[in-house]
Amino acid sequence: MPTQKHASTNQLITTYIDQLASFGLTKDGGVTRLLYSPVWMQAQQMLFQLFEQKGLTPFFDDVGNLYGRAIGRVESEPVILTGSHIDTVDNGGKYDGAYGVIASLLAVTQLMNEFGQPKKTIDVVSLCEEEGSRFPLTFWGSGNITGIHKPFDAALIKDSSGITMKEAMEQTGFGLGRHQEALRNDLSCFVELHIEQGSVLENAKESLGIVKSIVGQRRYTITVTGESNHAGTTPMYQRKDAMDSTTALIQRLLNSAKKLDPHFVATIGKMSVFPNTPNVIPGEVRFTLDIRHHQSEVLDRFYESMEHFFSETRFNDGVGIAINQWANVAPVDMSDSLAENAYLLAQRTGYPTRYMYSGAGHDAQVFGAAIPTCLLFVPSINGISHSPLEYTNEEDLQIGVSALREVLYQLAY
Amino acid sequence: MPTQKHASTNQLITTYIDQLASFGLTKDGGVTRLLYSPVWMQAQQMLFQLFEQKGLTPFFDDVGNLYGRAIGRVESEPVILTGSHIDTVDNGGKYDGAYGVIASLLAVTQLMNEFGQPKKTIDVVSLCEEEGSRFPLTFWGSGNITGIHKPFDAALIKDSSGITMKEAMEQTGFGLGRHQEALRNDLSCFVELHIEQGSVLENAKESLGIVKSIVGQRRYTITVTGESNHAGTTPMYQRKDAMDSTTALIQRLLNSAKKLDPHFVATIGKMSVFPNTPNVIPGEVRFTLDIRHHQSEVLDRFYESMEHFFSETRFNDGVGIAINQWANVAPVDMSDSLAENAYLLAQRTGYPTRYMYSGAGHDAQVFGAAIPTCLLFVPSINGISHSPLEYTNEEDLQIGVSALREVLYQLAY
Repeated sequence: MPTQKHASTNQLITTYIDQLASFGLTKDGGVTRLLYSPVWMQAQQMLFQLFEQKGLTPFFDDVGNLYGRAIGRVESEPVILTGSHIDTVDNGGKYDGAYGVIASLLAVTQLMNEFGQPKKTIDVVSLCEEEGSRFPLTFWGSGNITGIHKPFDAALIKDSSGITMKEAMEQTGFGLGRHQEALRNDLSCFVELHIEQGSVLENAKESLGIVKSIVGQRRYTITVTGESNHAGTTPMYQRKDAMDSTTALIQRLLNSAKKLDPHFVATIGKMSVFPNTPNVIPGEVRFTLDIRHHQSEVLDRFYESMEHFFSETRFNDGVGIAINQWANVAPVDMSDSLAENAYLLAQRTGYPTRYMYSGAGHDAQVFGAAIPTCLLFVPSINGISHSPLEYTNEEDLQIGVSALREVLYQLAY
Repeated sequence: MPTQKHASTNQLITTYIDQLASFGLTKDGGVTRLLYSPVWMQAQQMLFQLFEQKGLTPFFDDVGNLYGRAIGRVESEPVILTGSHIDTVDNGGKYDGAYGVIASLLAVTQLMNEFGQPKKTIDVVSLCEEEGSRFPLTFWGSGNITGIHKPFDAALIKDSSGITMKEAMEQTGFGLGRHQEALRNDLSCFVELHIEQGSVLENAKESLGIVKSIVGQRRYTITVTGESNHAGTTPMYQRKDAMDSTTALIQRLLNSAKKLDPHFVATIGKMSVFPNTPNVIPGEVRFTLDIRHHQSEVLDRFYESMEHFFSETRFNDGVGIAINQWANVAPVDMSDSLAENAYLLAQRTGYPTRYMYSGAGHDAQVFGAAIPTCLLFVPSINGISHSPLEYTNEEDLQIGVSALREVLYQLAY
């Protein structure tokens, strides 16, 4: 059991995180590191060298995932995978993804320094892409490893300047047959450490979150059609005001969301009004609805109550309501036994820990659909993420690394 | 008393209205006749000739208002003014404004044919501008006659292509000293016939509306500031969702508007959401509020209840609410005695008639603030206006002319 103190790790984490952030640093202190960009490649190369320095065997796969391998004594055993992603959103933070890669490297290094070669092979992975910021596709790294994406999908997808993913991949030195095949069938499990990107841990004054499930997401566009008319000459009782019906509907949706389940969230993020003129009664309002929960039944239940509100509103207000669903991602459960073990280990070490759900998407959901997966969170100050203001204090960064080390020790030694 | 039938008037009204509409006719049957445009000038010139043919003395003033004078026997008596405006909105209808000009011409012509020269001078007027469609200014015609606008204001105001009103005016042959001075102090009253631009008359199956007041209008922009946050990782109870607070607020505003007074109207016509992204909780929502009523006290009362809702919402939701008032037009009463006379005359002739309020602005509100003014409405089918679909049936057009004739007979003979 690794109980020894690692006084220098704290400093190393921030050193390495800052070093990674220097590739793609923006003028306001954020990071822009888009898939297959020059700074993205420089960051992977820095990690390549770091893996080597630390005694791991570095190698790329065809799509640009970078591995650092700690070869196990029993080579027939399946591989334990740990890490996160290296890409960022435009002007994002320096912790999202990068922290997980550095933390996995440090945890494995410490284990090797203390306990020598593991029994089972551990691969630290710097996944090439998760965010979907450059190309309209997410989870390119984990998707190629698990087989939900194929390298040749890259020919069809373009970035905003018209460059295909295949062109960008090949210009950076990747592509079919260039390195090791991306698809893997030799993995036993995946362990990811990530910042929370919310403020549940911070508010609860806890340092570690053990994720039980990553929520399912459904997204809809709802169109309410009334009748556009003169704001001055149409009495209130003669109106089919799409804004009136829409705001009543949104209030019912949000109030029902608040009562449904403490983990259920519903967001009306985007709205368009037609004709959108101060002195004309809106004839049409369109808005988006994003709903999330870790159980499909709860999402179904909300959809049913929504249908009920809609038919009532159609009847009472005489307006038209159309629903278009344009995204549907199922909830993914993390491995119960890995979560329970992680929880017990953290409890034993005395870290303030809780089980929780992830409201955001992570590579762990792609792995979680294929192999036993464990996702750990550390707090995000003020819940801020995807912003230069993203921050996690050094103590919590350190607790994350220690917890990850315990989990990996139990799995690999 | 003019009781003789005018079988041919019906046909003449539609002939003249169609003839006027030919200047600026759009491909979908609407009319675009913007102030000082070539088609606007052609329309005024057609009317100039028509006034002359019908035995009226035509003349322009400096800003482009066109008059057709029926000179009275007693020249010392102040002048009776009747008419409406010749300009349209972009792709508007052929009745809005134009009908009132043609109707005044026909009514005066019929009176002169039957009863000869009036005792008091009647000026039929084709007002140059009311809509504010080309330049950001309304009531340019009536405003110059009553003195709330001055011809030299035209130097400061530009259209969307950067041409000043002065340049446009001079290019069309108008401007200070070119014709008769626009400002008049010799008017006793103004009588305007207009389409309703709403559906109160149509729904009540009445042909004639006698307007008691033109409503006051106040316009506000209301900004609700919450906190933008991740749609997946922020629990409902931790949100300061500007969309949630805004929709609740709008529901309270509209419900209170419906109960306040049957003539009160409130419209939320325009909305902007920030950042307006499906998976981000809105941090700010801005919306416009347009409120109208014929009594300032009722507008005040609504504002007070609104302030009350706002302070409650600030307190409960912890959001910021800012109100910016950017328009405030006071209600204008039409002349009671002119309205009562018009009502009695219409009743006597057997036209289905009602007193009503105008929810839209008209030149009558500019004159009404200066001299006794009478505003008569005929129905708009489906309440449609400012659209190629604007339509009033011929029988109602005819009833409007007859009612106007009765009113002018009583005033001028």
